[in-house]
Order: sequence, then structure tokens, then C-alpha cells
Amino acid sequence: MERDNYLAAIKPRMPEKRYIHTIGVMETAIHLANKYGEKSKSAETAAILHDIAKYADEDWMRKIVKDNGLDARLVNWGSEILHGPVGAWIAETEFNINNEDILNAIRFHTTGRASMSKLEKIIYIADMIEPNRKFAGVDNLRKVAEEDLNLAMKACISHSIGFLVQTEQQIYPVSIECFNDVISKNA
Amino acid sequence: MERDNYLAAIKPRMPEKRYIHTIGVMETAIHLANKYGEKSKSAETAAILHDIAKYADEDWMRKIVKDNGLDARLVNWGSEILHGPVGAWIAETEFNINNEDILNAIRFHTTGRASMSKLEKIIYIADMIEPNRKFAGVDNLRKVAEEDLNLAMKACISHSIGFLVQTEQQIYPVSIECFNDVISKNA
Repeated sequence: MERDNYLAAIKPRMPEKRYIHTIGVMETAIHLANKYGEKSKSAETAAILHDIAKYADEDWMRKIVKDNGLDARLVNWGSEILHGPVGAWIAETEFNINNEDILNAIRFHTTGRASMSKLEKIIYIADMIEPNRKFAGVDNLRKVAEEDLNLAMKACISHSIGFLVQTEQQIYPVSIECFNDVISKNA
Repeated sequence: MERDNYLAAIKPRMPEKRYIHTIGVMETAIHLANKYGEKSKSAETAAILHDIAKYADEDWMRKIVKDNGLDARLVNWGSEILHGPVGAWIAETEFNINNEDILNAIRFHTTGRASMSKLEKIIYIADMIEPNRKFAGVDNLRKVAEEDLNLAMKACISHSIGFLVQTEQQIYPVSIECFNDVISKNA
């Protein structure tokens, strides 16, 4: 399936603003893939599909988690945490994607995890720094992403956890596994 | 065993600065106990003993963890995380303390945990705000501690995790369970 077909498939599932964000993630992910020696087609596909479940019904997503044996911890969390794993499930079952690396990049694009692949890091970072993102510190994340993929991953997961603490939002344990892993490897 | 005996017992196990810190924690914990309706004697005992293992040998602490079936996750962590649980073990085995609430207050004084008791919160907070502590933001933590014990716990665990992220130190998963629990109860 080609880029235009994927884009046509996701467009009706999200508001215009999220679609524009998705295009931004795609372009950024392709850029990072070319820069750091990853397949740009994999980055493109994962980026286009990463938010496919973003506006899915929460209860429906919990049912998908239960019926398909996804990580049982997910059922206690909201859409923000559910949409990655459920998006990967949609990519696999509806779009017939069987490249596990692409599926994992979709699955963990919000939370990160320990021992991320290069593609997973690219999608996680691209999601945070694509040109439409506007938050304090994003320009520094963009700068680091041009210099070193692992340092960018460290800066992005650190920013994300710091933001959750500041705004008093619960932190999914897998994000801490990601943070601890990245810190231990980039001390 | 009375205050002076406990103090005499801990003094040779730590540098002067840590002993002065311990006195500060004791006085702050007694103040908070009186303020929030906790037994001041329990607060006193837990406070005096909270850092008893702070300068114990790391490998010895790991052996204690293994030989006595303490939380198996501990063996992958350093002194900063080990000294609470091992301190509780010393309090129980060497000082014959069998009040589980006091032991838990010692055990979780560094990491916190989900569903902390009032005494556990008092020791956790007192450890952070005692008068000898000097770090950016400590005065605000002291202020909140005079107003509301649960909000103080939220402010302290948030500060602690934020500090670990900023300084690129690994975060013990139990601290995130504590943070998530406190956030969910004090939204």
C-alpha cells in the first residue's frame, strides 16, 4: 500500500489538525530515517499510521486490549496510553502490516519502552518535534535530534516525564522503563 | 528503648552531617505528627532510625536483600534505594522493632510507595524538608507541609521525580507507583 492510500485511509479518522500533525511526523520521520540510516519507507508507514486510533472510543479500545491479549496493564489507562498499542493492532489486522518493527514503532510511540529500535526512536522523536509542535523546549529537542538520535531520545523522554510531573498526570510505568534504560546507556 | 539510646546507637554509624540531618528529621517528624494526629513517639523512632543503613556497604545490603527475601528488584539498585528497606530490616532484627508502620516508614522513606500511611508520609516529607535541607523549592515544600499532609506528599514526590529527571538519574518504579497514586487521589 502506498503513501497516498495510507493517507486517504487515516484522514477520515481524525480532525484536520491531527492530520496535519501526522504529515509533519511523516516528513520528520523520513528526514531522521535518511539521516540515521533507517529505511525511509518503514518510517513513512509507521508515521502515517501512528495516530490511527487516537480518536477511537476508549471502551472499544479496552475491549480490543482484553479480547486480543494486549498488555493487561493498559485497561486501567485512558486514550492517551491506549491509542498506541491499539493503533498497532489496527495496522496489523486492518492494514495487514506484518513488519514487527513498524508495529512496535506505532505501539510505543507515546510511552517509549526499554531497548527501543532505531525506527521506534525515530517515530517517538518525530512525534514530539514535528514542525507543528509548539511547546517550551521543542527547539532544543529539534536541535539535539539533528546531532544524535540517542541523545535526542534521552532529551525527549526526559521532557515528556518532566511535563507529566509538572502537569500532575499519571506516568505509565513503561515510560519509566524507557527513561531508566536511556539514562543507563547515555550517562 | 528511649530517644537517647536510639540516638547513641545511630551516631557511630554515620558522619556528623548525617546525624545532624537525622535530628532535623526527628524534630520535623514530631512536629508533623502532632499537627496531623499521628503518634509522636512512632514518628520519633522512625525518624531516628530512617538512615541507619545509609552508610552500610552496598554489597552487604544486596546480600541482606537476597538472604532475607526482600523485594528482589532492589538488588539492581544502589545504596540510595537499598538503604531504606535494609534500614527497616536492621530496625526489626537489631532493634527489635515490631511495629510494622514504623518499619514501613523507614522502608519507604526514600522511594515512597502507593497507599502510604500517615506515618510513612510524615517521615518521607520530614526527610525532605527538615531545616538543614537546602535546595531550590524547599521553602515551598515546607509551606505546603504546614497546610495539608497529602498535598505536601504530592509536592514532595513530584519534586523528587522532577529532580531525578533533571539530573538524569534512574527512577525506582515504586516511586512512580507512589506518584501515580498521589496524583489520582489529589487531582
